[in-house]
Amino acid sequence: MDISVMRTAGGTEPADLAIINGRVVNVYTGEMSEGGIATRGDKIAAVGDVAYTIGDDTEIIDAGGKYLVPGFIDGHIHPESSNLAMRPFAQILLQHGTTVVMTDLHEVGVVGGLEAIEAVLDEVADTDLKIYFVVPSHVPFSPDLETSGGLFDPEIIRKALARPDAIGLSECVCTYILSEYHELLESMRDTLDRRLTLHGHLPGMSGPELNKCLAAGLSTDHESFSGEDALERLRAGCHVQLREGSIASNLKDCLMPLIDRGLDLSRVSVITDDLDTIDAVERGHLDADVRLLLSLGLGFVDAIRMVTLNPARAFNLDQEIGGLAPGRRADINIVSGPEDFRVEKVIAAGRLVAENGIFLKPYPVVAHKEILTDTMKLRDPVTADSLRITVDNSAKFARVHVIQTLDWIPVSEERTAVLRVEDGVIQPDLEQDVLYVAQVERYGKNGNIGKAFMGGFHMKRGAIASSVGHDNHNIIVLGTNHPDMVVAVNRVVELGGGQVAVDGGIVLDELAYPILGLLSDLPAEELAERKRRLNGTIAKLGSTIPLTFMFLSFMSLAAGGGYAITDHGLIDSANQKIVDPVISLEY
Amino acid sequence: MDISVMRTAGGTEPADLAIINGRVVNVYTGEMSEGGIATRGDKIAAVGDVAYTIGDDTEIIDAGGKYLVPGFIDGHIHPESSNLAMRPFAQILLQHGTTVVMTDLHEVGVVGGLEAIEAVLDEVADTDLKIYFVVPSHVPFSPDLETSGGLFDPEIIRKALARPDAIGLSECVCTYILSEYHELLESMRDTLDRRLTLHGHLPGMSGPELNKCLAAGLSTDHESFSGEDALERLRAGCHVQLREGSIASNLKDCLMPLIDRGLDLSRVSVITDDLDTIDAVERGHLDADVRLLLSLGLGFVDAIRMVTLNPARAFNLDQEIGGLAPGRRADINIVSGPEDFRVEKVIAAGRLVAENGIFLKPYPVVAHKEILTDTMKLRDPVTADSLRITVDNSAKFARVHVIQTLDWIPVSEERTAVLRVEDGVIQPDLEQDVLYVAQVERYGKNGNIGKAFMGGFHMKRGAIASSVGHDNHNIIVLGTNHPDMVVAVNRVVELGGGQVAVDGGIVLDELAYPILGLLSDLPAEELAERKRRLNGTIAKLGSTIPLTFMFLSFMSLAAGGGYAITDHGLIDSANQKIVDPVISLEY
Repeated sequence: MDISVMRTAGGTEPADLAIINGRVVNVYTGEMSEGGIATRGDKIAAVGDVAYTIGDDTEIIDAGGKYLVPGFIDGHIHPESSNLAMRPFAQILLQHGTTVVMTDLHEVGVVGGLEAIEAVLDEVADTDLKIYFVVPSHVPFSPDLETSGGLFDPEIIRKALARPDAIGLSECVCTYILSEYHELLESMRDTLDRRLTLHGHLPGMSGPELNKCLAAGLSTDHESFSGEDALERLRAGCHVQLREGSIASNLKDCLMPLIDRGLDLSRVSVITDDLDTIDAVERGHLDADVRLLLSLGLGFVDAIRMVTLNPARAFNLDQEIGGLAPGRRADINIVSGPEDFRVEKVIAAGRLVAENGIFLKPYPVVAHKEILTDTMKLRDPVTADSLRITVDNSAKFARVHVIQTLDWIPVSEERTAVLRVEDGVIQPDLEQDVLYVAQVERYGKNGNIGKAFMGGFHMKRGAIASSVGHDNHNIIVLGTNHPDMVVAVNRVVELGGGQVAVDGGIVLDELAYPILGLLSDLPAEELAERKRRLNGTIAKLGSTIPLTFMFLSFMSLAAGGGYAITDHGLIDSANQKIVDPVISLEY
Repeated sequence: MDISVMRTAGGTEPADLAIINGRVVNVYTGEMSEGGIATRGDKIAAVGDVAYTIGDDTEIIDAGGKYLVPGFIDGHIHPESSNLAMRPFAQILLQHGTTVVMTDLHEVGVVGGLEAIEAVLDEVADTDLKIYFVVPSHVPFSPDLETSGGLFDPEIIRKALARPDAIGLSECVCTYILSEYHELLESMRDTLDRRLTLHGHLPGMSGPELNKCLAAGLSTDHESFSGEDALERLRAGCHVQLREGSIASNLKDCLMPLIDRGLDLSRVSVITDDLDTIDAVERGHLDADVRLLLSLGLGFVDAIRMVTLNPARAFNLDQEIGGLAPGRRADINIVSGPEDFRVEKVIAAGRLVAENGIFLKPYPVVAHKEILTDTMKLRDPVTADSLRITVDNSAKFARVHVIQTLDWIPVSEERTAVLRVEDGVIQPDLEQDVLYVAQVERYGKNGNIGKAFMGGFHMKRGAIASSVGHDNHNIIVLGTNHPDMVVAVNRVVELGGGQVAVDGGIVLDELAYPILGLLSDLPAEELAERKRRLNGTIAKLGSTIPLTFMFLSFMSLAAGGGYAITDHGLIDSANQKIVDPVISLEY
């Protein structure tokens, strides 16, 4: 509540800004009508005929008959997937009309815990992007199977939930709900006790399993892959977040059956989950999704609602955001019509921040707190010896487990292969597409190195390493030989975090992520260019996966299905246990 | 969150109750489909095919192909207007399919403060009606113009907001918002800080005044009297509660323009505000409103939503109530179809409580706490002298202010009249329809008696008195002569509160409200019969207002427009001041 906004609304004090001559899209009634919007500070004071709010010093924007729609809201996004620091992240989203995101900053939490998340939230606080914090439900996800820097247990979660910007609990994972994992249930109860919302991560759930998860009180789920998934969740009272992101894009498949049946869509929204910077620069964000929605035949107001009012409602925030009405955050996009949908002007928190895709006053780079930059704490430099998988000296062959990535989604399966053994060291086999993979603990906690075999990337030469690896963000390294892997890992450490491609002992290309080993201060356009270059370099090493590092980063996901590599070793995720990569030896 | 419900949902433990062979009305998608509902404890575990939840001890209800809809929710009701104690109140509502109400228990608070409200909430806690508590925003409304028993200031409101059943702040009155009354704004801020909701009382607000009120953060308003009112509020992002109650019934007028324009109705619900027991018994509650909605041409699911999902959403409670889905409160009505809509069975919190309008196991009368029963604390019995308005002995006539009630809504206007003076005492004038009215303070705080003149009721004989009078609930007495008024007031005191009709010094009829001076333990049907009898008695005294006591109870409303009578005297409500009822004398 802001008295000055009330006074402008009441007509006794002038507006700071008045947008006139627009067509107001009313997401509440579904109407569109000529009018304007008056703002005071960061809030909307009046909508419609706002002449009464205009004073001598009121800034005027003439919308020229264009449509006025609420700023867009992404109800589930991990900013870290962009590898952008929060300020360039805010900037690229605002350029595309997104003014609010809900995020758990889970990856920041994995590396640096709540303290690091709070430092990151401070960095974004004086930008024009509004972040609502959805508290991570569990870090590390698999405490017995991986080492993380940060920790979220029920006590820390309670502390985080008490923040004024905390609005819920994120990624309540189905497997833990089904197993009634006591720590998760405790945090879920704490969240409901505060009248905040629970957000599910329910891939593959259906029938009684889905019912059990939803009976626990989840408000949303973002893991629909098909129309059947979406339909079952919607019918069961779950707000469905349809994903159109860089890793998974299921919007069309999920939505068409709902449209075809003429269902109420007020409990459906569009989210990205993960948005790569290349996609953000080349395709856009929710503005591109509105174009997609319109192309699917959705009405203009319905399409706008899916990225405004609907996500606001899913978080019980529709008094604050998601519509054009007195008291709401002054997030307003001036857009062209449904035929050729483009965001032309972006007003965030009452300030004109972008015009025709140009960000008007780029944010200066901020000085980061030490907890965000001092995160590469290897006990010792890595050596070839430390990466080798050795067996009985006299063995000739080894049958091994191979982690195998699918080529369209970063999900792993398991296969087996028979590899040659030389002097007790198991050899890779490029013919069979079996490479070395390892994960090196980087928080200075135990010096663990997990080692296994990897398929699906088809690299023929060199090695690549990265300090981005879900859900622990240790250093993951993939290679055809140990010397290149050593160079790659040690260069990542020298960079303070980042991604590196090595061949013949030479660093071919690299990208520094000195913030948490995850993020760069480069502007989005420049980072996208550097990412494209790095991807090109990796392609020359033979990788057939276009987003090699993105896929590789999910190969350490111990909470997924299939197999994974963590600093603890090869993980059988489905059974949540560590397994020896070597099945048997032949002599 | 309830582990046992999760286990039933997950199929590992049996349901307590399974309703089979129904047609499930899905308020989320808008679909209707064959299926059932399984419950465990007080919650829904599964919907649709629930065969997997049925065990040996699961109770089965065969819906016989009838429709299954969520229990009804009244988002704004003052139970005290029924004059029923909470248990018979719960019973009559449940009989009609209402399983949840949002209420501020404002009148209880006026008499006994938060302590009395908490005692009342305790009384209802072990019934099957769910009450969400919307904290009164201000008691007394006009501290300088009336005496109340209870007090709600920002500190007490903070304490009340901390209750787990508190979901918002009630009756945020427009005049106080417009004047930026600091205590109200402080409590509104406290409410928003807890992420709870603000509920407006905005009669007559439009344009900048409405904008100012809504900019303060109000979620709802229940004071639309016309389609224009409803339309303007809806467009401005306000959830509109349309009223169909015993005092004001504006549902049709307000709704038709919204239907005709084809607007989104998800932010519209139906409430009663005040429901007299006679209406509840004769007409019903929200079940009757669903019939009205259907008669207006609304679709079946849309009509059901207006008394289920929509009010749940207005309070951010749609994860708890308002739909048939896993985890929701097991409030289920088995109803006939849209053609001949009747509630046939009512399941509340998982228990079958009513069948074909019969309440299966009536609640026994509860022993009330002393704070609820010891509320008639007059310092001295009233005498004729204490009720007289005296002037200069030699005056012949007096020009006076007359409080004049409208005959269709209990709202007062002011008129003047010239009355005879006899021996210094101003006389009533039945020809001009000017009666005596007075209000006697009953909390033992100051012994105040306010005196004035009243028109509009047309009584010709006797006197009536009542301990029900908004917003202070002192004893209000209306009469043609002082001796009958004295008998009436003192009899109300003897009853420990109630309503009395007197003629010629004889009590003709009476109704005891020994709980707070407001409520009776009689069952609804019996209280309705007694009320009808009392109304008949009053009609014989000449009153032309059918609900005389209901109208009289609003004549002490110092926060309304027009004039009012309180224990402080005649109140000019619009100017919030006490005025002398005597304008001038003639000699």
